[in-house]
Amino acid sequence: MTQVAEVQGFTNSHDRYPTRIASGPSMLQRNEPAVWGKPADGPFDAAALAGHEARGFTIVDNVLGAGEVTSCREELDRLSRDPSMSDSGRVITERGTDEVRSVFDVHRRSDMVAALIRDGRILDRARQLLGSDVYIHQSRINSMPGFKGTGFYWHSDFETWHAEDGLPVPRAVSCSITLTENYPFNGSLMVMPGSHKRFVQCVGATPENNYTSSLVEQEVGVPRREDVTRMAAEFGIDQFTGAAGTALWFDSNVMHGSGNNITPYPRSNLFLVFNSVENTLVAPFAAPRPRPEYIASRDFTPLS
Amino acid sequence: MTQVAEVQGFTNSHDRYPTRIASGPSMLQRNEPAVWGKPADGPFDAAALAGHEARGFTIVDNVLGAGEVTSCREELDRLSRDPSMSDSGRVITERGTDEVRSVFDVHRRSDMVAALIRDGRILDRARQLLGSDVYIHQSRINSMPGFKGTGFYWHSDFETWHAEDGLPVPRAVSCSITLTENYPFNGSLMVMPGSHKRFVQCVGATPENNYTSSLVEQEVGVPRREDVTRMAAEFGIDQFTGAAGTALWFDSNVMHGSGNNITPYPRSNLFLVFNSVENTLVAPFAAPRPRPEYIASRDFTPLS
Repeated sequence: MTQVAEVQGFTNSHDRYPTRIASGPSMLQRNEPAVWGKPADGPFDAAALAGHEARGFTIVDNVLGAGEVTSCREELDRLSRDPSMSDSGRVITERGTDEVRSVFDVHRRSDMVAALIRDGRILDRARQLLGSDVYIHQSRINSMPGFKGTGFYWHSDFETWHAEDGLPVPRAVSCSITLTENYPFNGSLMVMPGSHKRFVQCVGATPENNYTSSLVEQEVGVPRREDVTRMAAEFGIDQFTGAAGTALWFDSNVMHGSGNNITPYPRSNLFLVFNSVENTLVAPFAAPRPRPEYIASRDFTPLS
Repeated sequence: MTQVAEVQGFTNSHDRYPTRIASGPSMLQRNEPAVWGKPADGPFDAAALAGHEARGFTIVDNVLGAGEVTSCREELDRLSRDPSMSDSGRVITERGTDEVRSVFDVHRRSDMVAALIRDGRILDRARQLLGSDVYIHQSRINSMPGFKGTGFYWHSDFETWHAEDGLPVPRAVSCSITLTENYPFNGSLMVMPGSHKRFVQCVGATPENNYTSSLVEQEVGVPRREDVTRMAAEFGIDQFTGAAGTALWFDSNVMHGSGNNITPYPRSNLFLVFNSVENTLVAPFAAPRPRPEYIASRDFTPLS
């Protein structure tokens, strides 16, 4: 990388997490904690924070009530059908069909989601985990249809956000809220507890406009099979299941993925990605240019 | 069907379960019980038999010991690599790869499996469930590789065996024994408890030599989405998971299927299909000609 940007002390010339490399990838130790705040800073108590630091994720039941879940699903339907959303690239469909797979940038296109990211149930936890003010790096609804939904192969979000968006270090956290029941068998998220403490380097240069295909099926930024095998042996695999309205808070560097869904039960989740205002984006660490704003926001205004 | 065969009182001209029809499929009520024997006839007690009749399946833990599981897996490896097995069509590989998906006719190609089908732990239960002497209709090992294993879409085995093999009525039972741990997330079998009491007619004529593609991905003999949705709403979905050596006994007409497997953990199961000697094959009910012997045996000699 000859490109050097400097924001808040991070420069691309000092890359702690090199990836998309030519060959010989390995696992690096992560330098930063997953939990930056203290028990007094928010709703998570000391045990919850310790668990989050160890596993890299925490499940909170009943974050949304049934009425809120219904409203969220109606928002998803509305946004999925909104021509300005699809025309602007914010709606991703499954390969070879017009079934909606993801809708991006929902916090700026839905008053309801805009309110939710500022709701104490959500925002207080994001701030506590990241130990600072926060803003939304990315928001999306993933909708895995029944019968033919395809999953997401194993990956670390941070690897992509670092390489393609210029997220300096893993001081970001995702809040995934179930909008339908997540069963073990309808493509629910699998997570490797503790995997957030390793950074798995990936092989292969990032193609121009990689996001236009990677959001359907990722081909670059994918860990090698031997690394997935090693991590599964070391950390095991857990699955995130629960009734609609359950939240999963997971560190940006947790290794996770999902299988397909042949059941009649669609699997929809709202994803809200919070980043610390002390970790705002610089130039991409391993991509020709940044991804669009609707995938990786450069509005770093703290939420309040 | 102009073809009429008569064996043991069943004729193809009196088809209780028409399928592969032109249009307008519906769900038929099943006429026969799932359990034909009594508690005194074998290892299952009255409660177990009642449960099997109601759900259509029964799980028996620790049927095989660790040593037997290892031996079975070694047999699978040996048979997968045996040129006479692959040259004769008995080895099915995943589409576009040479990874083994299924190996058929293992009870005639492995002394170990030949002994197992006659073992009291297995044979006594098969006889008890079917209330008669039994023989092996089909045997196979399904091996779903890690990372890229693809599943089996929803289907009733009986629908295929009736249409393509000439199995008169659902008086057959499968014993699936786990050879690796079956987790909720590595493509484990999903079953709809109670679904064996309905016969879901399928639309579409059976192509010539359908088995050459259907064993990789079934396209005919697949229930409509609305029927799967209706059955899931009525019966729900259970999943068969367990340590290696666990057995699932499931009725030939249970609606079942499996998702894919992106975990590093392969999912291997030995399938032994027992049929009652009072239900031996006639001509296929809805296919141009019978499938090969190694998929649907016409050796009706009772096991002893």
